[in-house]
Amino acid sequence: MSKVRIGIAGYGNLGRGVELAVKQNEDMELVGVFTRRDPSDVKTLTGAEVYSMADAENMTDKIDVMIICGGSATDLPKQTPELAKKFNVIDSFDTHARIPEHFANVDKAAKESGHLAFISLGWDPGLFSLNRLYAESILPNGKTYTFWGKGVSQGHSDAIRRVEGVKRGIQYTVPIEEAMDAVRSGSQPELTTRQKHLRECWVVPDEGADLAKIEETIKSMKNYFDEYDTTVNFINEEEFDAVHNKMPHGGFVMRSGLTGAGESTHQMIEYSLKLESNPEFTASVLICYARALARLKAEGVTGCKTAFDIAPAYLSPLSAEELRAKML
Amino acid sequence: MSKVRIGIAGYGNLGRGVELAVKQNEDMELVGVFTRRDPSDVKTLTGAEVYSMADAENMTDKIDVMIICGGSATDLPKQTPELAKKFNVIDSFDTHARIPEHFANVDKAAKESGHLAFISLGWDPGLFSLNRLYAESILPNGKTYTFWGKGVSQGHSDAIRRVEGVKRGIQYTVPIEEAMDAVRSGSQPELTTRQKHLRECWVVPDEGADLAKIEETIKSMKNYFDEYDTTVNFINEEEFDAVHNKMPHGGFVMRSGLTGAGESTHQMIEYSLKLESNPEFTASVLICYARALARLKAEGVTGCKTAFDIAPAYLSPLSAEELRAKML
Repeated sequence: MSKVRIGIAGYGNLGRGVELAVKQNEDMELVGVFTRRDPSDVKTLTGAEVYSMADAENMTDKIDVMIICGGSATDLPKQTPELAKKFNVIDSFDTHARIPEHFANVDKAAKESGHLAFISLGWDPGLFSLNRLYAESILPNGKTYTFWGKGVSQGHSDAIRRVEGVKRGIQYTVPIEEAMDAVRSGSQPELTTRQKHLRECWVVPDEGADLAKIEETIKSMKNYFDEYDTTVNFINEEEFDAVHNKMPHGGFVMRSGLTGAGESTHQMIEYSLKLESNPEFTASVLICYARALARLKAEGVTGCKTAFDIAPAYLSPLSAEELRAKML
Repeated sequence: MSKVRIGIAGYGNLGRGVELAVKQNEDMELVGVFTRRDPSDVKTLTGAEVYSMADAENMTDKIDVMIICGGSATDLPKQTPELAKKFNVIDSFDTHARIPEHFANVDKAAKESGHLAFISLGWDPGLFSLNRLYAESILPNGKTYTFWGKGVSQGHSDAIRRVEGVKRGIQYTVPIEEAMDAVRSGSQPELTTRQKHLRECWVVPDEGADLAKIEETIKSMKNYFDEYDTTVNFINEEEFDAVHNKMPHGGFVMRSGLTGAGESTHQMIEYSLKLESNPEFTASVLICYARALARLKAEGVTGCKTAFDIAPAYLSPLSAEELRAKML
């Protein structure tokens, strides 16, 4: 079988992760990176070719799957429908509330042009969504909980960095162990926002900045910190660079359900991720779905799909026989 | 949409679990239980009708999915291909090494008669298999570990009960916490059988039995206990009935993988189940796959399938739109 030819649209942390993930899969090859920057300004990690985004439309016959590595706020709502007119595409659109609208736009573009598009892949949405679906289908009487962390939230880190007097800043979302243990006990607790997660901030202040004011401004920030117990820690730049230079993340999906006579038998399903690099892991998910996309496209499938629509066997390089013999 | 009409073939612990699981799903209805015993000897938990297995073939137009609740050793290898000639069927065949052979037999029977059959569903094989597949597809460079328990092993409990002087006996498989923590650390340890699980036995001895001899016989039993650290605890019948009257089980599937430049970034995926009742949970899995079976059959699919072949969306009572809006 010929290799799946991958294009990467957008070369940030996620794009770099995809570049590296391709190397781990023998049935994939990277055609190149497409950027809105001047291609001569972009140096790739593995020496992959860099093209201008404008050149992509001349390379439609060279790329089986274009993996779009832009941001969900402004890039993907435009890029994914646009690129789906020319390519089979995959994105990691993660603004949960806007998924139905994004799906409709991408589905229309892909169907009209005869392409196949997978959206909202990664771990949440993505693997966590799959676990919610499987668990809720199996245990209809129950309650599902999602906890995130410990990990870096880009949105909250950006918010800290906008505070006056903050030179560098990073925010970790931390799931609260007592809350998770309460869920595991089967008591199906009602948990408030504050009971589920802490927010832990590390800040390098500007010289002479008012630390008390920075702390107060962060802790009272609406929509970001005011509903949480938040800690603000001031450190120097050396420590910041040494300790807070990674993008770890992860989390937990738990379903606490009841079965049996009187629906009194407790059954617990728990899925968790502990990731040293969020973008590298997300990239690994996207690449294995690129394999599924190539196979489904070869079967004639077009339009927009999500993780829910894709039978697991399509993700593996193994044949159906091998999967049954080795992994079932 | 009309309800999915379920038949249960075999009425042991699993059959009873299916009977109760049907009640938790509004889109399902139970037609009846089919037994090889005299139907008048079988009392169902919810008042479900009981028929002789021989009557099943006269009721093919009344049953959408027959869930076969026999044992894997001798029942299912015969029953599933046989019943697949007359019905769409689901089983929980769990002899891993014999799955390819069982698949071939069921596939042939189902294809020839135009039926759809799902085999080897439950949690292992089943949900654990799915997690192995997803995790290995996402993290090709890594190592997968499966731990079972703490839970009752029927095979090992049966083995204990065959020992001379044993009146009652039960065996719990216990995963070793240190081994799981070593896996979680990312060190990808090589673990021996003895390092992964303990075997914990609870025995009610016959009056005057030689306890030392019972303990020695159990601990040295080939293929069952000799490769494990095993504890044998003697208790009286009252305690046995009070404490050891449930069928809990569960376990863990872990994938420790590496990504990124130099493949040095550690990524950890963990899935776990903590089940107060193994048969009730297995039944819940079978019933949600009955929904998927009815839908795929309506699309014209026939032959034998496993969990790997079934797109997750088919399992949920929610529509594709609802799933995208609520669960993605």
